[in-house]
Amino acid sequence: MRVLGIDPGLAIVGYGIIDHVGSQMKVVDYGKIITTPDERFPTRLSGIYHAIKVILERYEPDAVAIEELFFAKNVTTGIQVGHARGVLVLAANEYGVDLYEYTPKQIKQAITGYGAADKKQMQQMTKLLLGLEEVPKPDDVADALAVAIAHGQTGAFSEEFRI
Amino acid sequence: MRVLGIDPGLAIVGYGIIDHVGSQMKVVDYGKIITTPDERFPTRLSGIYHAIKVILERYEPDAVAIEELFFAKNVTTGIQVGHARGVLVLAANEYGVDLYEYTPKQIKQAITGYGAADKKQMQQMTKLLLGLEEVPKPDDVADALAVAIAHGQTGAFSEEFRI
Repeated sequence: MRVLGIDPGLAIVGYGIIDHVGSQMKVVDYGKIITTPDERFPTRLSGIYHAIKVILERYEPDAVAIEELFFAKNVTTGIQVGHARGVLVLAANEYGVDLYEYTPKQIKQAITGYGAADKKQMQQMTKLLLGLEEVPKPDDVADALAVAIAHGQTGAFSEEFRI
Repeated sequence: MRVLGIDPGLAIVGYGIIDHVGSQMKVVDYGKIITTPDERFPTRLSGIYHAIKVILERYEPDAVAIEELFFAKNVTTGIQVGHARGVLVLAANEYGVDLYEYTPKQIKQAITGYGAADKKQMQQMTKLLLGLEEVPKPDDVADALAVAIAHGQTGAFSEEFRI
């Protein structure tokens, strides 16, 4: 089962594609979609939409996994991320793939066995689980790979996490 | 100049199309896009995206006006509206029309001359300005018409409000 994990954002969308075969995992690819503040806001949303469509068509995932959105820190950033996440969910739905959503706690639990793991523990475990030589950079990419791992370990056989 | 005003939402998207000719205004059409909780969230976003595309293609507006988003009341609702607003902004940008954004205060100021006007005053003035026999229902439709009026009166000749 091929999973596309997405870490939504306006300036950086992280993505990671993982093949889950039984309990084994293999990284297919990962990277980031970048938009810059010198583009207009609607143009940035279009850029994200078209870039994720290309990724969906290139890798043909069986599922898309994305982190649930919270507005704890910065409301203005949260609004922007909400817009970006909307066009990412739209693109996946238009492509015809099912979407699954996980809370940060569920992702941490799936990867480290501990729902309150810190960022460094998460990144080290992501690196180990995927057999990578280094922690993928930036954090958005590591986060996207983490949610793709979590889907294989937690939600792949459950409708509970489907949105 | 033809303006499409949009009041974003997940369950109801209000829209209103107004022709501004000099200081005159004429209502072309108004209505609402509805999605229901028995549809999945991604399906609701796709429904909104395709419905607004049809409206854009049918009425060929010269500008789209939309209210700025605040997260004062309900954060969960705010996240949902953010997603819906993202696909609305995307659809307008893909269609190739410029988008303009106004705060509630700017809209109230444009319509009643008073930035703290209440909902009833706003709806009565919207009805009067557009020569309608009744206040359009639901509120989402009245709000969409209001932001379309505000664009003609405030932002039509200014880049200040363009996003």
